[in-house]
Amino acid sequence: MGNCSQGCKDYFSRQKNTNIRLTLPVVCFVWQIAMIILFGVFIRYDEESDTHWVETKAHDNITSDIENDFYFRYPSFQDVHVMIFVGFGFLMTFLKRYSFGAVGFNFLIASFGLQWALLMQGWFHSLDPQTGKIFIGVESLINADFCVAGCLIAYGAVLGKVSPVQLLVMTLFGVTLFAVEEYIILNLLHARDAGGSMVIHTFGGYYGLAISRVLYRPNLHQSKRMQGSVYHSDTFAMIGTLFLWMFWPSFNSAITDHGDGQHRAVINTYLCLASTVLTTVAISSLSQKTGKLDMVHIQNSTLAGGVALGTAAEFMISPYGALIVGFFCGIISTMGYIFISPFLEKTLKIQDTCGIHNLHAMPGVIGGIVGAITAAAASESVYGKQGLINTFDFTGDFKDRTVLTQGGYQAAGMCVSIVFGVVGGAIVGSILKLPIWGDPADENCFDDEVYWEVREPYFFIDNPIFSQTIMFSVYCNCFTFI
Amino acid sequence: MGNCSQGCKDYFSRQKNTNIRLTLPVVCFVWQIAMIILFGVFIRYDEESDTHWVETKAHDNITSDIENDFYFRYPSFQDVHVMIFVGFGFLMTFLKRYSFGAVGFNFLIASFGLQWALLMQGWFHSLDPQTGKIFIGVESLINADFCVAGCLIAYGAVLGKVSPVQLLVMTLFGVTLFAVEEYIILNLLHARDAGGSMVIHTFGGYYGLAISRVLYRPNLHQSKRMQGSVYHSDTFAMIGTLFLWMFWPSFNSAITDHGDGQHRAVINTYLCLASTVLTTVAISSLSQKTGKLDMVHIQNSTLAGGVALGTAAEFMISPYGALIVGFFCGIISTMGYIFISPFLEKTLKIQDTCGIHNLHAMPGVIGGIVGAITAAAASESVYGKQGLINTFDFTGDFKDRTVLTQGGYQAAGMCVSIVFGVVGGAIVGSILKLPIWGDPADENCFDDEVYWEVREPYFFIDNPIFSQTIMFSVYCNCFTFI
Amino acid sequence: MGNCSQGCKDYFSRQKNTNIRLTLPVVCFVWQIAMIILFGVFIRYDEESDTHWVETKAHDNITSDIENDFYFRYPSFQDVHVMIFVGFGFLMTFLKRYSFGAVGFNFLIASFGLQWALLMQGWFHSLDPQTGKIFIGVESLINADFCVAGCLIAYGAVLGKVSPVQLLVMTLFGVTLFAVEEYIILNLLHARDAGGSMVIHTFGGYYGLAISRVLYRPNLHQSKRMQGSVYHSDTFAMIGTLFLWMFWPSFNSAITDHGDGQHRAVINTYLCLASTVLTTVAISSLSQKTGKLDMVHIQNSTLAGGVALGTAAEFMISPYGALIVGFFCGIISTMGYIFISPFLEKTLKIQDTCGIHNLHAMPGVIGGIVGAITAAAASESVYGKQGLINTFDFTGDFKDRTVLTQGGYQAAGMCVSIVFGVVGGAIVGSILKLPIWGDPADENCFDDEVYWEVREPYFFIDNPIFSQTIMFSVYCNCFTFI
Repeated sequence: MGNCSQGCKDYFSRQKNTNIRLTLPVVCFVWQIAMIILFGVFIRYDEESDTHWVETKAHDNITSDIENDFYFRYPSFQDVHVMIFVGFGFLMTFLKRYSFGAVGFNFLIASFGLQWALLMQGWFHSLDPQTGKIFIGVESLINADFCVAGCLIAYGAVLGKVSPVQLLVMTLFGVTLFAVEEYIILNLLHARDAGGSMVIHTFGGYYGLAISRVLYRPNLHQSKRMQGSVYHSDTFAMIGTLFLWMFWPSFNSAITDHGDGQHRAVINTYLCLASTVLTTVAISSLSQKTGKLDMVHIQNSTLAGGVALGTAAEFMISPYGALIVGFFCGIISTMGYIFISPFLEKTLKIQDTCGIHNLHAMPGVIGGIVGAITAAAASESVYGKQGLINTFDFTGDFKDRTVLTQGGYQAAGMCVSIVFGVVGGAIVGSILKLPIWGDPADENCFDDEVYWEVREPYFFIDNPIFSQTIMFSVYCNCFTFI
Repeated sequence: MGNCSQGCKDYFSRQKNTNIRLTLPVVCFVWQIAMIILFGVFIRYDEESDTHWVETKAHDNITSDIENDFYFRYPSFQDVHVMIFVGFGFLMTFLKRYSFGAVGFNFLIASFGLQWALLMQGWFHSLDPQTGKIFIGVESLINADFCVAGCLIAYGAVLGKVSPVQLLVMTLFGVTLFAVEEYIILNLLHARDAGGSMVIHTFGGYYGLAISRVLYRPNLHQSKRMQGSVYHSDTFAMIGTLFLWMFWPSFNSAITDHGDGQHRAVINTYLCLASTVLTTVAISSLSQKTGKLDMVHIQNSTLAGGVALGTAAEFMISPYGALIVGFFCGIISTMGYIFISPFLEKTLKIQDTCGIHNLHAMPGVIGGIVGAITAAAASESVYGKQGLINTFDFTGDFKDRTVLTQGGYQAAGMCVSIVFGVVGGAIVGSILKLPIWGDPADENCFDDEVYWEVREPYFFIDNPIFSQTIMFSVYCNCFTFI
Repeated sequence: MGNCSQGCKDYFSRQKNTNIRLTLPVVCFVWQIAMIILFGVFIRYDEESDTHWVETKAHDNITSDIENDFYFRYPSFQDVHVMIFVGFGFLMTFLKRYSFGAVGFNFLIASFGLQWALLMQGWFHSLDPQTGKIFIGVESLINADFCVAGCLIAYGAVLGKVSPVQLLVMTLFGVTLFAVEEYIILNLLHARDAGGSMVIHTFGGYYGLAISRVLYRPNLHQSKRMQGSVYHSDTFAMIGTLFLWMFWPSFNSAITDHGDGQHRAVINTYLCLASTVLTTVAISSLSQKTGKLDMVHIQNSTLAGGVALGTAAEFMISPYGALIVGFFCGIISTMGYIFISPFLEKTLKIQDTCGIHNLHAMPGVIGGIVGAITAAAASESVYGKQGLINTFDFTGDFKDRTVLTQGGYQAAGMCVSIVFGVVGGAIVGSILKLPIWGDPADENCFDDEVYWEVREPYFFIDNPIFSQTIMFSVYCNCFTFI
């Protein structure tokens, strides 16, 4: 604590052992070495990223390099990449004194998870039976980022209450569960979910909530002084919100069909999100005596529309349909922050730091339902014969499937994602409950001091003027009130 | 005001009624429902975003999905999207205590305006006579963002002095006026304005200035303590500046001709902006006794070059021509902040919070003039026969138009945009003067407390050491000097 | 100093003459006018950005505008552009009171340097012998940004210790040296270096370190109070870190071969960077008694993998090879911050503000070695006959070169970049030592007050409570402890 006074020494002496000097490096090293070995055994470049592409291309009569999948997907990939690292990372910086943990641990677990995701998804989706290899290209990278997104959503529920080691364990199991449920939903049930309303958001949301339930802290109020935001931290969080909001059309269109598929998904998501903003503002204003807006709603609920259109974005939901989805998501998500979150905490003992239930879980379920209905309502008159086949991929084993059946399988897919989230989260949560992970004491939650070298240690003294505790922060020979 | 002392109770009791709990939600809901209905009646996917594209493509002998307009324009669209939401939003966060209003209201009115823009521009530009429908694709989304930009520019002039309800009304009329002037300039006069020097910046600038003139506040000095920036707020504003600056080449090339058109517009804008930075720095340094730089200039005037090249970016202005435009824009815009803004405020009673006159209005007019001259000076020797026809779209009714005539129409177009801005702004301003919109009192301008739940309420006490008022800010049980 | 007390008047009276009101504007104006003239003489649009493209296209039997190089490279260009202005700019905002200088001067010298880079690189690489002109397109813009990157890296070593005028001089010579060494390495030695491990990072790193050595300040401790970061400045720096990290795949693939070349470079860099994050976190945690993480390491060392893969990214290094490179770079770079930086400062008298030795110089050298080895180990069995020729461009004068020879030339290229950096930096450093550039006094280093109008002037008084100096900052009628 550097030149910190007695006051804070006492204060910090109260904390549990949060020393992660052994566990964190060991997990990182062991894991990274394992990744290198497994990549050496299994991962290869696919034909479009291999130097043999020059022959492949000639063989497939591809006239121009521009038809390499790279040029269809790379711009969307980069937008998704920004959402994962800047979007999710900065969205969680709203806490007054947990910005390092928000951005830094998000950075760590995303980098950790995407490597494991390439392997897990590869084994389940694209393992070549002859060679026993996984061939990766830009679409694999997008899917790895998607897979990681599920775990970052879960992080939102436990933000500030767990150690980085717990986060790594949570991500390890999260990615594994994700790959399995994704395989069941997309391959076995043959449900469509390009933007991952079910696969990513519903699963990730319930996974995080279940973990948070198991890790319930009855005395969390002891760190009340560290909860909530300050002016600048709310502004930082808006960076995350806006990059998520702006690039969500890329998220929902990144792996949809070339041509009209990506084009339509972008239009739908763009419109849906715009409509969400208006209803979020309306409900947020209604919720305050004087109609003031709450940054928590603006930072989070404005994104609910993108979540809810994850499944249906590539369908012919039509522009006004997208607006309707956004309209209701803004209302439901904002009301979730006002009414449901307190209920979850008090009654169900679920402490949801970022309110992922309102931003991901609920809108994800809505998205699954919207997807099922839109699929069941699809018709050749609207889609065209070939268009219908392409959109729902009614080929191979599924060439005789009707849209009604498809709707049913979509609904089934959603249930699978919920079950995986809740059950998986409960199991992983109980693993994380073991007293070996160096998690913080109740009074040190939401505090970067625990896992970061903060150059402004602070402490508390009595405030003579207002007879209330003041938080002081001192660095080098300067002096600051944060 | 939470645990705020008597001092600030008195202080805040002095304010006007800024309760928007009724008006804001009503406007948002009514408007969003209207949008849903109108979209249901009018808006459809265009052929490149419709599932029938698979047939269309075959019919048009398009060999590859990569030729879908989506792949020509989507990367530029996303850059423009970032400019609208992060660029404009964060550029306005420079005020010490209005970051929520800057980013949040920018977010609200942009989402609100782009839906109305799709309809208005659709009715004027792309209403299909047979079906009576508007068919939208990625280019429509870009144009909607462009249209909204005009209103966000206008917001810069009234930043901190109006209520969100006033902003919505301002945007509603702004988008409407925009669509009309755009129709006159681009369709009737057949002027070229790909980057919108005239259509977007000149119109938006004068629209905002006229509104600000009508809403003149003689006692604005009462909120002097809230004007100006603090260290971190200036740093946040640089995020906006840089994203606008970096992506401006995408802005000016987003809807230019495929191939060389987009390519050339990017090169011109890139060079023009680089040259603007140098002259801005030079004048800013000259303006201070010791040669110190002023963040206000760096944040704003460095962008003037992009505005001024909006019309001519797609022309063969040649690389050194682009540098020359940037050279003068940096000088003029910075001098505008030093000399013209004070004059506007004192003499013309125009209070221009962000200095949009220097960043948009003046450079926009310069851009119109540059465009007119460059067009009039175009020649087949430079453009090539077909190149000249393509660049100025001398086809159909306009196939016999000479470059000289074109230059004249370009100049006419600029006058139209000024007239629409000034007259339209004056009318809208007088509507906004009605005492029903919940705008803040003079002493509460530039203060997020009025429309946002700020978790650090502050108040004023006398400073014993410097015998000057100190602003205190208190949250939960912490305590801060901002 | 506005209403600043006697205390700070005395304090600031101690500073050297840092008045740049004459020099800075003169350099900017003279330079920009020179640029306009030289561009007028030399720079023209290339055939893909010229209106004659319509004929060129027909002549070359190009069927679609989408094959214009613009669509292969523009998305990557914009990512690189963001890295240059937001990435490098914000990465340097970590100092508690030098954010304006970090972002602002980065903005200035990048805009200044890229114009000169277009000319220098044009003269050396693409001067058309017949016309004597330089024809530029999107690839030229990428190369100009790359060239500027070398100088921005060098800025990192002298951050806070030099005047903007010195930075402009440093950039002017830096770009010149860059173009020459690049010509020797890429054209004469025919080494491959698409991501610039050698050409950009090794050169830039040693160039900056050599300058910093010559400008050594024995009494820099006098500004100790301004060194180090505060909570918000570290968060701002993470914006820079993340945009550099996310877009590095675009950096390393921006100018590689169309198709599989760009595709492969992205995959390799993406994987390499992910692995760097894990080992950086591991070493950072190991370096602290309680395993706490240090933001300095997370902000910088996580990027080392991208630097080290600059040369080999386009080769068939294979996914696990990329992970291995990242693995070691994270370790070496973080250890560099812990052990080597203090050694450089104490023993070699090199004061390296941002630690560019650990982020650019060392990883750059590693990248050169990795590139040489990977090239020497290349084989037709892995690359395919044509693939090998394409990847290493074994055509024309070099069609008989073997991979072993190529490996040797790669190694030679790295030596050239080191020599140019060290020798060039030493010479330029001695020029910058002249007492005419208005650099700050030792006690005013790392302080924006010197070159910026800061609206919160601050000063020092004795702190009655902690008997230590307190930094006060006063603006308008508010009052702040930063």
